[in-house]
Amino acid sequence: MDKKKFVAVIGGNQPSPQEARLAEEVGRELAKRGAILVCGGLGGVMETACKGAQSEGGVTIGILPGESRQAANPYVQIPIVTGIGYARNVAVVKSAQAVIAIGGSYGTLSEISHALQSGIPVIGLNTWSLSRNGQQDNSIILAQNPTEAVNRALNLTTN
Amino acid sequence: MDKKKFVAVIGGNQPSPQEARLAEEVGRELAKRGAILVCGGLGGVMETACKGAQSEGGVTIGILPGESRQAANPYVQIPIVTGIGYARNVAVVKSAQAVIAIGGSYGTLSEISHALQSGIPVIGLNTWSLSRNGQQDNSIILAQNPTEAVNRALNLTTN
Amino acid sequence: MDKKKFVAVIGGNQPSPQEARLAEEVGRELAKRGAILVCGGLGGVMETACKGAQSEGGVTIGILPGESRQAANPYVQIPIVTGIGYARNVAVVKSAQAVIAIGGSYGTLSEISHALQSGIPVIGLNTWSLSRNGQQDNSIILAQNPTEAVNRALNLTTN
Amino acid sequence: MDKKKFVAVIGGNQPSPQEARLAEEVGRELAKRGAILVCGGLGGVMETACKGAQSEGGVTIGILPGESRQAANPYVQIPIVTGIGYARNVAVVKSAQAVIAIGGSYGTLSEISHALQSGIPVIGLNTWSLSRNGQQDNSIILAQNPTEAVNRALNLTTN
Repeated sequence: MDKKKFVAVIGGNQPSPQEARLAEEVGRELAKRGAILVCGGLGGVMETACKGAQSEGGVTIGILPGESRQAANPYVQIPIVTGIGYARNVAVVKSAQAVIAIGGSYGTLSEISHALQSGIPVIGLNTWSLSRNGQQDNSIILAQNPTEAVNRALNLTTN
Repeated sequence: MDKKKFVAVIGGNQPSPQEARLAEEVGRELAKRGAILVCGGLGGVMETACKGAQSEGGVTIGILPGESRQAANPYVQIPIVTGIGYARNVAVVKSAQAVIAIGGSYGTLSEISHALQSGIPVIGLNTWSLSRNGQQDNSIILAQNPTEAVNRALNLTTN
Repeated sequence: MDKKKFVAVIGGNQPSPQEARLAEEVGRELAKRGAILVCGGLGGVMETACKGAQSEGGVTIGILPGESRQAANPYVQIPIVTGIGYARNVAVVKSAQAVIAIGGSYGTLSEISHALQSGIPVIGLNTWSLSRNGQQDNSIILAQNPTEAVNRALNLTTN
Repeated sequence: MDKKKFVAVIGGNQPSPQEARLAEEVGRELAKRGAILVCGGLGGVMETACKGAQSEGGVTIGILPGESRQAANPYVQIPIVTGIGYARNVAVVKSAQAVIAIGGSYGTLSEISHALQSGIPVIGLNTWSLSRNGQQDNSIILAQNPTEAVNRALNLTTN
């Protein structure tokens, strides 16, 4: 398993129906390509991405914020129980070699930030865009669809 | 000391000269108003803010990422040594009742995100602006100058 | 405030009456000697130690595990809100230059362990004793009473 | 994979030759029994346990303290990069349903403590023993050999 690529899928726990479909497709595509899916282990985008990956025989890791493995969505095969709350967002992205962000709220934005801070590539599908002091920041790589997002993520995996 | 307000000042460790001046003025103003300054304890905006606060007799807290209190800037009076790396960004904002962001890079953006996720007000001076899925997000409250930033922060302190 | 010594007082949240008295006396003694008290911010030993320190005009810091400053005991003047659960035990001891352990259960034992791992001296009052592979480990320095504990802690402060 | 049992193997990074043999045998035995091995991902007991598990086709997870997956020992198949330093000790034990401690120093003792605090069973091989306030604490279940340790761990898995 040790030559496999690890890709995080991040996004909100209350996705729109379209975001949920994107996440499931990203999960399926990652599994077909042999990548291991890392996520925050809970519901919404995290769950549909895991569901997609599992449907194609992929491996899914959920890095949970709370104290119990019971909180993991049913498609997480490897629950990591951190007990450190939102600080686990750092571990979600650092455990991946590339990150795919789908929609999402401020928790997702914190994960995008931590990834960019660590030099881990972030591919975005319908997610945040950033500008700093009036200037557009183009660090989030935009993808038009799940297949493109997965292609870019796998081509950009670092470390 | 227990009725005092706690305000975090966040921003990069390589500020522009203008950002450094803004930070120092924010620090001075917080101290004059009796607020306690919380920051990440290192250099740049964190240091000049602490310097400003100390010059007016204010109390300064630095929540450090590393393993040693020696890393604190010389104006931190109360160093908290977390040893948890960038995950300490969560503690910086959660320990405050309002946050003032000055410039900053992705680490600052992660702190802004964690604050907004926790419902802690964020006041911005020359910092990030956000849009989500093409729509402007106005959660960061813009201030024109340090005095306005401090006024707004103290008026909005929560919890 | 920056030349002051930081000493952590650790112990259980359900101390015996004797342990509570020891903690209060340790807090008073630390304050009289000008040291700043660091603790986990909650009840039991943490609270009575803070109460003792406050009664002598000392400064008290509570490094909290949860998401809210409201959880701090009423004698904590500087609440640090980490949101990282029991992992905050590491920050409690790392933020101190010496540790005084009074009674306590497994949480206290984890703090003793993290302190010893980091080379921070631990002084014990009615607390854990350790042996490894059948051999007594004497790293916890035994004190007979609060005054001796505080003397030893202040003499041994590191970093 | 989701019905599998997760067992942490903890111990020092400088084990005696005997401890290293015990760790490797524990790893092999866990893999034979279909359990997933969780550890801190570094050298010593962590590495020889992973080596043993991998030799029998088992799955190995390493929950790393630092910022890089490169620090994982070569037998870790699933590196989790936390970036939170020693606070990751909490995640190592919370991610397991039982813990086997082999030898070890203060880091191992902190993991034993965090496990007992969370009600996760700890089985010991040549490791720490504890007494509190003069009374022996028998919470660490003693095993005579690796097979007994693994049997007890698998019988006691919780949550």
